[in-house]
Amino acid sequence: MADPAPDPALRDQTLADIGEFGLISRIDELVARLAPGEQVLVGPGDDAAVLRVRNGHVVVSTDVMVEGRHFRREWVDAVDVGHRAAAQNLSDINAMGGRATWLTVGLAAPKDLPAQWALDFTRGFAEECASVGAGLVGGDLTSADQVVISVTVLGGCTVSPVLRSGARPGDVVALAGRQGWAAGGLAVLGRGFRSPRVLVDAYRRPEPPYDAGPAAADAGATSMIDVSDGLLADALHVARASGVVIDVDTAAFEVPEPLQAVAAATNSDPLGLILGGGDDHCLLATFPADVALPDGWRAVGIVREPGADGPTVIVDGAAYEGPTGWTHF
Amino acid sequence: MADPAPDPALRDQTLADIGEFGLISRIDELVARLAPGEQVLVGPGDDAAVLRVRNGHVVVSTDVMVEGRHFRREWVDAVDVGHRAAAQNLSDINAMGGRATWLTVGLAAPKDLPAQWALDFTRGFAEECASVGAGLVGGDLTSADQVVISVTVLGGCTVSPVLRSGARPGDVVALAGRQGWAAGGLAVLGRGFRSPRVLVDAYRRPEPPYDAGPAAADAGATSMIDVSDGLLADALHVARASGVVIDVDTAAFEVPEPLQAVAAATNSDPLGLILGGGDDHCLLATFPADVALPDGWRAVGIVREPGADGPTVIVDGAAYEGPTGWTHF
Repeated sequence: MADPAPDPALRDQTLADIGEFGLISRIDELVARLAPGEQVLVGPGDDAAVLRVRNGHVVVSTDVMVEGRHFRREWVDAVDVGHRAAAQNLSDINAMGGRATWLTVGLAAPKDLPAQWALDFTRGFAEECASVGAGLVGGDLTSADQVVISVTVLGGCTVSPVLRSGARPGDVVALAGRQGWAAGGLAVLGRGFRSPRVLVDAYRRPEPPYDAGPAAADAGATSMIDVSDGLLADALHVARASGVVIDVDTAAFEVPEPLQAVAAATNSDPLGLILGGGDDHCLLATFPADVALPDGWRAVGIVREPGADGPTVIVDGAAYEGPTGWTHF
Repeated sequence: MADPAPDPALRDQTLADIGEFGLISRIDELVARLAPGEQVLVGPGDDAAVLRVRNGHVVVSTDVMVEGRHFRREWVDAVDVGHRAAAQNLSDINAMGGRATWLTVGLAAPKDLPAQWALDFTRGFAEECASVGAGLVGGDLTSADQVVISVTVLGGCTVSPVLRSGARPGDVVALAGRQGWAAGGLAVLGRGFRSPRVLVDAYRRPEPPYDAGPAAADAGATSMIDVSDGLLADALHVARASGVVIDVDTAAFEVPEPLQAVAAATNSDPLGLILGGGDDHCLLATFPADVALPDGWRAVGIVREPGADGPTVIVDGAAYEGPTGWTHF
């Protein structure tokens, strides 16, 4: 459903035209059609959703995406913004070794936003959720100067959740999923180009390795994180939380052809896209050295005892001088 | 803690000065100090929070507050914005007859926001949560052109949740909590005044009747909603969801003295503040006629069969011509 048919009745209608409750009723219809769930006792439309839970752990995460900062409407269509917003949050549950079950969305948007944009966003969001068996169960809609999307995701773990703090010296550092592709796509879009298409698509609609998180938890991963700020930046979160040094081995990375092409065209180092890029929502985890890595995981480094510099990230055994990722302020 | 001591190290520091991770670590410290919870297995700081749940129902709601629309920083200090944001969301769980347990906050804010504002907001938010035994377990922080606060709250119900759709003809319509006070405070602030102080305070820091929701559920309430858009506007949600007419009896309302004073000073009808005002987060519910209303509830109307106009809200048996509340677009 890359190009869903727009609703003719919404043609040229803004949020102000259709009104809050007009839009909400359409969103509720859409959500009910896309994401029914037998564990959802009360879905959108009341003061709160009511969900049936079993004994155990609920995993909860919240992320906020802001127009102009996390996405641009001229670069990413509404359906893909929906997919991205859902993927980013589903990925946080993945990084705990859990499986997402329910999500809520708070959408703040300018009054002149086309109503179809909000519906297309919802459609993409619900589609991405449905791809992992999760459902959109609630939300809020209000006006603001720019589009701000706040998502909360709930999930469950069958085994203990995998934290950032469990990496131990001697562990193998491993990666699951594509890394650097979305950063390559963003670099392309930032220069006004639309190809290589495979990278632009990777940025617009990431493909997080949703099965890799639970597989890593089952295999005994000692720590795990989803790469959203950048590979080295997120590795640093693990290093600090665990009190270790993470040593990334660049020889472990094959640089895919489209990244080589972008690097050549932009006169940059393709390894910089891999080490500094976020937005692919690949997973970084550590495993005991004697564990066979699950399908989809590949070794990219090793965990070492902290030296004089304390917990940190190094590349090929030495400090890294290139870009390490993203800061929000 | 109306006037918490500011942190001297943050004097004149903006979010850009202190940086995302600098602020997050301070927020995490603050939250850990204010809201420990034995059911929180992993709190803020990892990819997701991990919560221990029992068999049963989880109730989930999301609300978004936008600076300039839902609050003004010059009218409401950061601690009170935190209280208001939490109260608004805790109230949604209250309106289901549930009790809130955990909350997450997504905060988008301009880079030049004083860092102390974000911490004071968090403090007020966590204090309001702690007042009902709920804890702040996760969040996200990012930059935006204006302050946007998105809150998700989770709670539990011991009996079946009370929906908007269960009101039946013959039921008594009842109210718990103050109504019209916050609207009076907003009217005062909008004209540049700061008194009557009791109304301004009611707007800045609402006092939802947190015990009244579970009490109504226990007593067998047939429908319930939290009044956030306005008494008549929210009654209309119940009327439509239930397929009934709600007839509000204005003789049932005592107009408190401060509302009379504001109405006199602004040449308006104090009943308009009560019937049209939101933001107090009082509860509106319907009860079978033979049920004794629980403590804190007072009868304010009756549920009737729908007539030719279908489900609607009437006042003293007739259509109402005054303001009915708030629309978002």
